[in-house]
Amino acid sequence: MPLLKSWVESANAPDCEFPLNNLPYGVFDDGKGARMGVAIGDQVLDVAQVDHGQDAALFTAPEWNGVMAAGPQVWDALRARLTELLSEDAYRTAVAPHLVPMADVQMRMPFRVSEYTDFYASRDHAFNVGSMFRDPENALPPNWLSIPIGYNGRASSVVVSGTDVCRPWGQLKAPDEALPRFGISARFDLELEFGAIVGQPSDGMVSVAEADEMIFGYVLLNDWSARDIQAWEYQPLGPFQSKATATTISPWIVTRAALQPFRTSTPERDRPLLPYLTEPGPMLYDIDLEIGLAPAGKDETIIARTNYARMYYSAAQQLCHHTLSGCPMRVGDLLGSGTISGPSADSRGSLLELSWGGKEPLTLPTGEQRSFLQDGDRLTLRGRAQGDGYTIGFGECTGTIVPAAPRPAWATE
Amino acid sequence: MPLLKSWVESANAPDCEFPLNNLPYGVFDDGKGARMGVAIGDQVLDVAQVDHGQDAALFTAPEWNGVMAAGPQVWDALRARLTELLSEDAYRTAVAPHLVPMADVQMRMPFRVSEYTDFYASRDHAFNVGSMFRDPENALPPNWLSIPIGYNGRASSVVVSGTDVCRPWGQLKAPDEALPRFGISARFDLELEFGAIVGQPSDGMVSVAEADEMIFGYVLLNDWSARDIQAWEYQPLGPFQSKATATTISPWIVTRAALQPFRTSTPERDRPLLPYLTEPGPMLYDIDLEIGLAPAGKDETIIARTNYARMYYSAAQQLCHHTLSGCPMRVGDLLGSGTISGPSADSRGSLLELSWGGKEPLTLPTGEQRSFLQDGDRLTLRGRAQGDGYTIGFGECTGTIVPAAPRPAWATE
Repeated sequence: MPLLKSWVESANAPDCEFPLNNLPYGVFDDGKGARMGVAIGDQVLDVAQVDHGQDAALFTAPEWNGVMAAGPQVWDALRARLTELLSEDAYRTAVAPHLVPMADVQMRMPFRVSEYTDFYASRDHAFNVGSMFRDPENALPPNWLSIPIGYNGRASSVVVSGTDVCRPWGQLKAPDEALPRFGISARFDLELEFGAIVGQPSDGMVSVAEADEMIFGYVLLNDWSARDIQAWEYQPLGPFQSKATATTISPWIVTRAALQPFRTSTPERDRPLLPYLTEPGPMLYDIDLEIGLAPAGKDETIIARTNYARMYYSAAQQLCHHTLSGCPMRVGDLLGSGTISGPSADSRGSLLELSWGGKEPLTLPTGEQRSFLQDGDRLTLRGRAQGDGYTIGFGECTGTIVPAAPRPAWATE
Repeated sequence: MPLLKSWVESANAPDCEFPLNNLPYGVFDDGKGARMGVAIGDQVLDVAQVDHGQDAALFTAPEWNGVMAAGPQVWDALRARLTELLSEDAYRTAVAPHLVPMADVQMRMPFRVSEYTDFYASRDHAFNVGSMFRDPENALPPNWLSIPIGYNGRASSVVVSGTDVCRPWGQLKAPDEALPRFGISARFDLELEFGAIVGQPSDGMVSVAEADEMIFGYVLLNDWSARDIQAWEYQPLGPFQSKATATTISPWIVTRAALQPFRTSTPERDRPLLPYLTEPGPMLYDIDLEIGLAPAGKDETIIARTNYARMYYSAAQQLCHHTLSGCPMRVGDLLGSGTISGPSADSRGSLLELSWGGKEPLTLPTGEQRSFLQDGDRLTLRGRAQGDGYTIGFGECTGTIVPAAPRPAWATE
């Protein structure tokens, strides 16, 4: 598919993240209150202001959950309507007054997160972590090649790009310490992930094909992780407070429709998957991803580049597996892909892997070293799919680490 | 505190679960739609029908979340108002028309569950499980005596007492099988727990004392668990689909206020807790608990009796720990205590423990044996606090196991 031209000229540049082919959905605030918006070029369309006929009520809340709940026919009709309004010059006079410059708005959470699930589905990531903490010869857990391993996260901790992230306190115990202590996390990390947003509910098992149809769109996702808290708490029931400080998502929901041209297949399998996980077609997407790290007041360095196509399991497979025991899924559920790493040292999706557990600190161009995040560091994830003369972008997924809260009076030494 | 007398005569019997001292909150449906109700004797008060002055809007939705969000002053005022209306004979004429016989109503979910967290906090339970799967000499995980271990569950799977529970499908692999298969869980189990309902939100760390004040009330909770799915999936990130089929709660929220007379302390510590977990007073409750099992068409047998006072960690400690890394808590969050077991063989809160992993099946009076649940089994949890001439009950927390769904066409052999 080539570039679809818009009368919003800025949308027609080949490197613009928000051409007419994209039309991602967000919630913006220009000082007059939070409203639903659509990105086009360097503008945001105040989408409630255009005529939606009988669907008008779907556009009054500052969240996209209502549109998601309305179902795929409404999704398709909205995309067709917006494409028409923003491509045909005849609509320019009526629509242009409802465009707000992106530079003048603050982005809010694009949807209300119902529940948040995080997975563990990049083979290179699982291999790296297993090699560090277990044994390179047996790096993958025995179930890894059969199960899209997931765990439930905390929806209340999901924040939108731009929200500061406060370094957490927690229970910590180093391997050489006899007893734990209450302290500030010193091994605070990022995780480069891709988030799938469930747009339709389920009650009972759904197939991979049905799961794919339930997905409304995707965001970039940074699952901030306190490795020292995680190491002490995670046995036997999994990560808990180590993953509950914050999870940052990019502000624009890029729809499944916009990503269709970029579909690609999961890799060859070491051992066959159980039939229920068979994919009826390509379920991954070819999306270049990068992590930028900027120390306080310093320039940013790209510390890793990888691609979503590197995953072993797709979001559709993960969502199918999620429903296997009868677990109801709801509109607004968010599924994190799991950390996305590639095979090379510069394609690892976390500092845990990039610094190999702190043993091989990264050296930034400024000369500073990083094993884990320092206060003041600004982390930015970016994602781009390269089309024929156009780009599909997600907007930045960024967060700055701020110092831990003061020690509470009730948590004495 | 002695029995508080009500003009609703059935509330004054010493074994009535719902005397004036209790006043638990639920949502009932008598065929005219779901409404908020208060249990008193063998009646349900249609609470929206009594005068609440400026708080009237809190009683229009079929859920107690609005009252919870309104805060402790509103909670106290409501309890005082209801106590007055149901004790003083002068109000009988005005209030009696709004009583509905409990026998004529169906109970619904009493509140909308925001997020659901489950803990692992009974020492006897952790010891039993650790003895079975690891080693009686090292039964407790190294962190168990320091951390109120918890993991995030799935709020969408929480159902009210009386809802049938469908035996789940899942990925299964027995220790002697080389590869997993898609099959029906054969080791489906119950877990006797106590659920705490968060009635006030938090943003940042809260102390144990603050956490206690945030709790609106308690319910009985059965965290249905597929042990065979759990065994294969839970490493390294914890239980997922094994716990997502359903979690059943009792229909009445027994308020913290009603339970005040039954407060009791957590036990002596093997090693001191970190100061942040210090309790400013007794935070457990003396509540007798029991599990009844009735095979299809057969009489019920009580298969275990224990007490909530057996926990090592209180809900207030669990909630405090939950906020440690900055995790925001929300109105309607549900915290499961973890399976509650006692030290004796007949005080174990799960069939996993009662049958010692299936090695010592229970024999019921009918002659039938049980290692795990069979289709048609009806499980009922009950809880009672014994006051001076009165009883505080929770109503039954019950669910019947129905056969697994047919194999989906897309999940071939």
